Amino acid sequence: MTTSPAKRRVDPEKAAGRRNQVLEAAAVCFARSGFHGASMSEISKQAGMSAGHIYNYFDGKNAIILAFVDAHSEYVSDMLSNLGSLEDPLQALVDNAERHVNDTLDPQPWHVSLEMYAEASRNPDIAERLRAHEDSARGQLMALVKRGRERRNLAVDDVLLDSRVDTMIAYFHGLTVRALHRPDMNRAGLVEAFQVSMRALLMT
Amino acid sequence: MTTSPAKRRVDPEKAAGRRNQVLEAAAVCFARSGFHGASMSEISKQAGMSAGHIYNYFDGKNAIILAFVDAHSEYVSDMLSNLGSLEDPLQALVDNAERHVNDTLDPQPWHVSLEMYAEASRNPDIAERLRAHEDSARGQLMALVKRGRERRNLAVDDVLLDSRVDTMIAYFHGLTVRALHRPDMNRAGLVEAFQVSMRALLMT
Repeated sequence: MTTSPAKRRVDPEKAAGRRNQVLEAAAVCFARSGFHGASMSEISKQAGMSAGHIYNYFDGKNAIILAFVDAHSEYVSDMLSNLGSLEDPLQALVDNAERHVNDTLDPQPWHVSLEMYAEASRNPDIAERLRAHEDSARGQLMALVKRGRERRNLAVDDVLLDSRVDTMIAYFHGLTVRALHRPDMNRAGLVEAFQVSMRALLMT
Repeated sequence: MTTSPAKRRVDPEKAAGRRNQVLEAAAVCFARSGFHGASMSEISKQAGMSAGHIYNYFDGKNAIILAFVDAHSEYVSDMLSNLGSLEDPLQALVDNAERHVNDTLDPQPWHVSLEMYAEASRNPDIAERLRAHEDSARGQLMALVKRGRERRNLAVDDVLLDSRVDTMIAYFHGLTVRALHRPDMNRAGLVEAFQVSMRALLMT
């Protein structure tokens, strides 16, 4: 741990609570003004903390955005570990459809949004972090799909695995874009379509 | 037509050529600097035309971005009309996979990019135009899928059609995002995965 002396004086539990308080306020501001448009002063007003106080926990807006990217990555990684640990990981992915659709249509603060990808195109720190997390999540998903297909005696050559997984990830990203345009889509219908498409990609 | 007297003096063919010259230069600048970052002076330098000359054809950068959105819409609409006019439109959509993957991985100037959606979040004119074009393309795709499924005696209830079409569109959007992150994806593999997924969504 390389915390500054000032930061070491803060009670760790209290510090985690304060960090969350800042992240929750930032989520509201990012949703309202975008990553690019939200200022530290807007975030500090929303959090009910002085900008100086916020700087005890984050070195600036960039650090807050990076904390968002990390939180999203942790969420995805935990979900994939959980699905991957089940007896039939492919069926688990298909059964996860309802949670997936609901999570996408009810965006949580930690979700990667279109805004996050747009920010990555302007900000090399964000782009690098996003890429590292994405490579790691893609690796987890590849291993899960490979194990699940082997279990079912289905083909697992590299090109097929790569392409099936990239097509799945394309769908995950695209549904996020789609949810911004049509937030009122029929959820039961999307779950059914998701399952039809995933069964074909994973189990054939 | 409500052209200004100044614009009426321009030879129509020459004007169309000049407009394309500006759009091609803008494509280069947008790819380099983003919609937001590219300035009229950068575009005018790239086009080898004075900014004043460009204003004969476009009222400003916004008008150039709108011309991009319109050109993309025309491309999609022509493609869907063409596929819809074929004997078996669902098979035609599946057979179109290679063109679709190549178009997405070799982005053309008229393509809707992530940048275009990000711009829409900041610019209500762009958002409105993008939404109108998207509604129109979605309507074309719905009609095509409905006709194709009727022809094959498959279910065509509203929720099913809506959800299958939104899932397809989510995949189209998502592949654009994916292509930015992994431009070196295996094209033959993506075509195969696209066809597996589309056959399931369209023909079951």
